[in-house]
Amino acid sequence: MIDHRLLNTFVRDIFLAMGCPESEATLAANVLVSADLRGIDSHGVARLSGYVRLMDHGRLNPKPQMRIVHETPSTAVLDGDAGLGLVVAPRAMEIAMEKADKVGTGWVAVRNSNHFGIAGYHASMALERDMIGWSMTHAGPLVTPTFSKERLLGTNPICVAMPAKEEPPFLLDMATTTAAYGKLEILQRKNLDTPTGWVQDAEGQPTTDANAVRKGGALLPLGGDREHGSHKGYGLGAMVDLFSGVLSGANYGPWVPPFATAGFMAAEEGVGIGTGHFLGAMRVDAFRPADEFKSHLDQWIRRFRSAEGLNGESVRIPGDPEREMEAIRRTEGIPVLAPVIADLKSLGERFGVCFPGEMNNSPSV
Amino acid sequence: MIDHRLLNTFVRDIFLAMGCPESEATLAANVLVSADLRGIDSHGVARLSGYVRLMDHGRLNPKPQMRIVHETPSTAVLDGDAGLGLVVAPRAMEIAMEKADKVGTGWVAVRNSNHFGIAGYHASMALERDMIGWSMTHAGPLVTPTFSKERLLGTNPICVAMPAKEEPPFLLDMATTTAAYGKLEILQRKNLDTPTGWVQDAEGQPTTDANAVRKGGALLPLGGDREHGSHKGYGLGAMVDLFSGVLSGANYGPWVPPFATAGFMAAEEGVGIGTGHFLGAMRVDAFRPADEFKSHLDQWIRRFRSAEGLNGESVRIPGDPEREMEAIRRTEGIPVLAPVIADLKSLGERFGVCFPGEMNNSPSV
Repeated sequence: MIDHRLLNTFVRDIFLAMGCPESEATLAANVLVSADLRGIDSHGVARLSGYVRLMDHGRLNPKPQMRIVHETPSTAVLDGDAGLGLVVAPRAMEIAMEKADKVGTGWVAVRNSNHFGIAGYHASMALERDMIGWSMTHAGPLVTPTFSKERLLGTNPICVAMPAKEEPPFLLDMATTTAAYGKLEILQRKNLDTPTGWVQDAEGQPTTDANAVRKGGALLPLGGDREHGSHKGYGLGAMVDLFSGVLSGANYGPWVPPFATAGFMAAEEGVGIGTGHFLGAMRVDAFRPADEFKSHLDQWIRRFRSAEGLNGESVRIPGDPEREMEAIRRTEGIPVLAPVIADLKSLGERFGVCFPGEMNNSPSV
Repeated sequence: MIDHRLLNTFVRDIFLAMGCPESEATLAANVLVSADLRGIDSHGVARLSGYVRLMDHGRLNPKPQMRIVHETPSTAVLDGDAGLGLVVAPRAMEIAMEKADKVGTGWVAVRNSNHFGIAGYHASMALERDMIGWSMTHAGPLVTPTFSKERLLGTNPICVAMPAKEEPPFLLDMATTTAAYGKLEILQRKNLDTPTGWVQDAEGQPTTDANAVRKGGALLPLGGDREHGSHKGYGLGAMVDLFSGVLSGANYGPWVPPFATAGFMAAEEGVGIGTGHFLGAMRVDAFRPADEFKSHLDQWIRRFRSAEGLNGESVRIPGDPEREMEAIRRTEGIPVLAPVIADLKSLGERFGVCFPGEMNNSPSV
């Protein structure tokens, strides 16, 4: 278990050592560690060395000069100058909220960015201003459309955050696949099979092999197969790709540059500029008084929570599992896996930053 | 087989006889018959008698005075005055497009409306103006959230339409359940079971009984069960409910008034006004030149269509199946089922409107 504040400081110092300005290193660390806090381990510090590899390969600019390349009162396209998505997406969200302040809503398509961490961080920025936040991103192709042998889409998450009054916010943050890639990694470590409908093998046939994607197979769109609605999961993933890539001027579909995890390094660019995202902000009081909306959302949440449950479970509200995990990890610390710790330590050695585990255990410090 | 133009005239004349103004009767008939043309039979003329029952029960105003109750440069809330959703939703879409013309995007939440037909009609209105169209609606509760025995959501569709250049548009129009209710009706008529993951029984247990919903069971969110991602389908359906109901000031969740199909007549209103929708329009050139966007969408579509297929199938683009069906039905006519014909004839008798089948077969006319 590692204290999230110490982990945060470590990550910030790595980003500083990479050349990021201080405010951006701090923000990027907050975004990354917020994933670990919420239990979305696949998007947290486990990805830090990926960002470093992106920089090593000349695909990441630690000092981006972001610029708005086109705008109207309610829209903008932001060029991220190959910066960290962890920093570019919050900037896009700030622009969206400024526009929402003035004309009710704001929508920012981003190009020339990189992996932005968890969608939920960015959409949630809207909440304290009584706005509804939207956040989407595409990613390197690991997913097959319905009836495809080829991987053409990423796990392409959609996130919508809405503020309640006394209840916690509604926070939908979902990959458009049956399961996110992080869920496969958990099964891989435990040597377990997947349920049906999660993956297909390199020949395009259904399988329950948790290592199928590494072997040339693919993640499946939400629904799994046509009979169970995979054309809908595919359609949602496609929509995210079009907003993130085609509307912004980034790459799209199979041309989206893969994130720098081992084995997925080769980029096949050519139809646009870098990776894209799509962010939005809607002022609640552009529709009805915010207090009224939030009271009704409270009522909605309470009605759903009080529904008669099944199989010993109760109805949960989107955002509940991550919030509950965060409450635990803020006090008990973050359980970073041994291979991730080894990875972080080697980054620490390279950049001359002490890893917090070392500091506690070593008698000489 | 009935010629779609004759069917359209019949439907228009029924709406006229119900008291709708001529332009609104024409529009409502176009929306309704467009569903039959596209093969979405459950949302077409089969529902006409439902609208009549709504009027008989005092829930439908054939001469609505719609009004904007709140607005900003990019948003509005439209009160539909209990009018036909078939007419209210297009009016909302017009307002959204006017706002998009001025400030880049426009978003209209609708309250006090009724069933609006197919989401795809409304979102597609944006296409000819080189805009991206959004359309959502909630509906009476037939769907259980994950781990719920109670039905709290409708099939709550999401639709996004995007214009291409030489290729047909991208048109995602999907219920947020594994299968739409119309798919169950087809199986009921054929006396067939459903696949797994479509429905649960009145006790909340998985079943393949196509009549489960009539027996107190429920449709399941896209994903089917927790292991297959039903929390995502539930989250999407919830999001549609919140935009359509809570943001607009309509009812929401279990309080959404059911559409007037036999057995689902009892309304349980009380938290808002009528049924709600959510419509949006985004000018493509508020982000990048429309011609550029449309050329890249063409390229996206062609790349996906050319993917290596599986099991003798090829990758299709959202909107393909409905477009192909429309091409056939425009020339070959619409196969209206015998019980629907009987239903329409009885409406014809009540309102003094000749049903087209009669006209062709009767020697005396």
